[in-house]
Amino acid sequence: MDLVAEQGFFTVRWHDGAVELLDQRLLPGTVRILRLSTAADVAAAIRDMAVRGAPAIGVTAALGLALGARELGDDPERFDGGFAGLCDLFAATRPTAKNLFWAIDRMRALVAGMRGVAAARIREALLDEAQAILEEDVRACRTMGAYGAQLVADGATVLTHCNAGALATAGYGSALGVIRGARDAGKAVRVLADETRPFLQGARLTAWELQRAAIPVTVIADGMAASLMRAGEIGCVVVGADRIAANGDVANKIGTYSIAVLARVHAVPFYVAAPSSTFDLDLGDGSRIPIEERSAAEMTHFGGMRIVPEGVPVRHPAFDVTPAVFVSAIVTELGVLRAPYRTSIARALGKGL
Amino acid sequence: MDLVAEQGFFTVRWHDGAVELLDQRLLPGTVRILRLSTAADVAAAIRDMAVRGAPAIGVTAALGLALGARELGDDPERFDGGFAGLCDLFAATRPTAKNLFWAIDRMRALVAGMRGVAAARIREALLDEAQAILEEDVRACRTMGAYGAQLVADGATVLTHCNAGALATAGYGSALGVIRGARDAGKAVRVLADETRPFLQGARLTAWELQRAAIPVTVIADGMAASLMRAGEIGCVVVGADRIAANGDVANKIGTYSIAVLARVHAVPFYVAAPSSTFDLDLGDGSRIPIEERSAAEMTHFGGMRIVPEGVPVRHPAFDVTPAVFVSAIVTELGVLRAPYRTSIARALGKGL
Repeated sequence: MDLVAEQGFFTVRWHDGAVELLDQRLLPGTVRILRLSTAADVAAAIRDMAVRGAPAIGVTAALGLALGARELGDDPERFDGGFAGLCDLFAATRPTAKNLFWAIDRMRALVAGMRGVAAARIREALLDEAQAILEEDVRACRTMGAYGAQLVADGATVLTHCNAGALATAGYGSALGVIRGARDAGKAVRVLADETRPFLQGARLTAWELQRAAIPVTVIADGMAASLMRAGEIGCVVVGADRIAANGDVANKIGTYSIAVLARVHAVPFYVAAPSSTFDLDLGDGSRIPIEERSAAEMTHFGGMRIVPEGVPVRHPAFDVTPAVFVSAIVTELGVLRAPYRTSIARALGKGL
Repeated sequence: MDLVAEQGFFTVRWHDGAVELLDQRLLPGTVRILRLSTAADVAAAIRDMAVRGAPAIGVTAALGLALGARELGDDPERFDGGFAGLCDLFAATRPTAKNLFWAIDRMRALVAGMRGVAAARIREALLDEAQAILEEDVRACRTMGAYGAQLVADGATVLTHCNAGALATAGYGSALGVIRGARDAGKAVRVLADETRPFLQGARLTAWELQRAAIPVTVIADGMAASLMRAGEIGCVVVGADRIAANGDVANKIGTYSIAVLARVHAVPFYVAAPSSTFDLDLGDGSRIPIEERSAAEMTHFGGMRIVPEGVPVRHPAFDVTPAVFVSAIVTELGVLRAPYRTSIARALGKGL
């Protein structure tokens, strides 16, 4: 997979003994690669949103664990204790994205299954596993793209929120993967990107990567979507997800629930695209999905300039939960899931009902 | 009326032969008064949004016409021609706010009624009329506040969008007038202010003036309102209006329609507060209200920093139209109007059905 040749950029990769990231905080103005040589630096990059997007966070944490394992010695007990500490480090970076915990659990299970094996061999296996997680993520996105393309009409205008693109995954994207899939299937498709306050992932990231993919994109303020739906200008909505409960309730970027309700009222289909690593079958519904509260500064300041008067409080939940009843379909690499979701999700993920 | 003593600031006033404005583009960081000595400068201040808010625009245009009349000579024909030109100048500043055209029409009617009177007398009468328009606007806001206070429960959290406050009127405010009215009636009231992209009137202006009024205010991103409604945290919505059609359809800041739909779905009352100068009985419904498209730069840049990649287009309609069916009541200085609005509006404004 040569993602740089195909997309013109990579989101996260292992290169020459370190984790490399495209620093998404500086886009679209500056394209800068962060080269991270310690697990602590990788964890900080996730926490500080140099990399973001649920699948990309999972892949980055896996690579960070493989990197961190190299800092641990060869003594088996110390290795196990040190690795548990690394898992805790990454688990504490962002609370909402299920893919993060899924990736950590997978790396932890690998180590548990190699008890008695030399640390050097475990380190090799961890790096192989992290690379596999990355490659599987790109493949899952391409498969979602192919499935999801069927949902997008030729000539459609698709509204998306936040960035669920190549930049939010190891490559190709989940929601934007569906859009790329429609394009790759020969369909004409145009995108309306919510700018997505306060972090502006839509204006900064979705617009940037779709421009590079030569897919027509227009940026709108989040409050404009409703009147464009009323005017009949939006064919469907496609968004990503940070965590999906067993009943199909979807946690995603703050503002997603708003769009889902507006889509229902205006009879616009509302699709979610997410790899199976996003599902949390331990949660019966979305009410117990932990919602990250991010810093007030991301609301009160903009490019260093204060936009909210000193002393005025702000709210900053980074995610909201969209009840499954508002979701027209969930596109996964296992197929397109429809209501009733408790059944379709359990069946697709191979768990008993 | 000593608004400075009461509010700590004035929005627009006649002072010492010139029009003075609080430059709202610099708030909340800088409090600067613009002193404008020509009608052209006043028109530019409206166009460039140094002053904004439909009633404030109307008052400012009236004062600007009084100022401009002083630039015209004493020759009756030249005066009439020059005054017509001034009216055209102000009419071309912003297309959506009805109050602008209402104020211009009122000043024009005054001149038409004084045909044959000396220009010096007409100039005096124009200034008196502009001052009357300003004072009536403040009185209308106070009356709206008293009527609207009845709609706000003691202890309520009120969501508002954009700024329909003292800064959007000659003083006291329309939507924020209702909130001030509730407070003045002894009710505890808290405000959630949508930051209101792209111009951030909520974060910058509503938060600033409510902080000065010691009314608790918290700023949220526009996309957060829906999940807060779902959580039961919003008691009612109160917004202003830029133009209201004969059937009660309401043009207001982009994003208002979104909130109105979300409020209906969540069974949250949605109130509009606007003086009678906002109504346009020549328009049967909202479909023909002219919607201003503002510059792309207000979307693509933020504090001088580019946030949308070069070459990516944006949309920037400054207003949207909320159909009357989503409006729980319209608070005016003539009383609280309820559906069916075609009847209640016609009756309140004293026009036949």
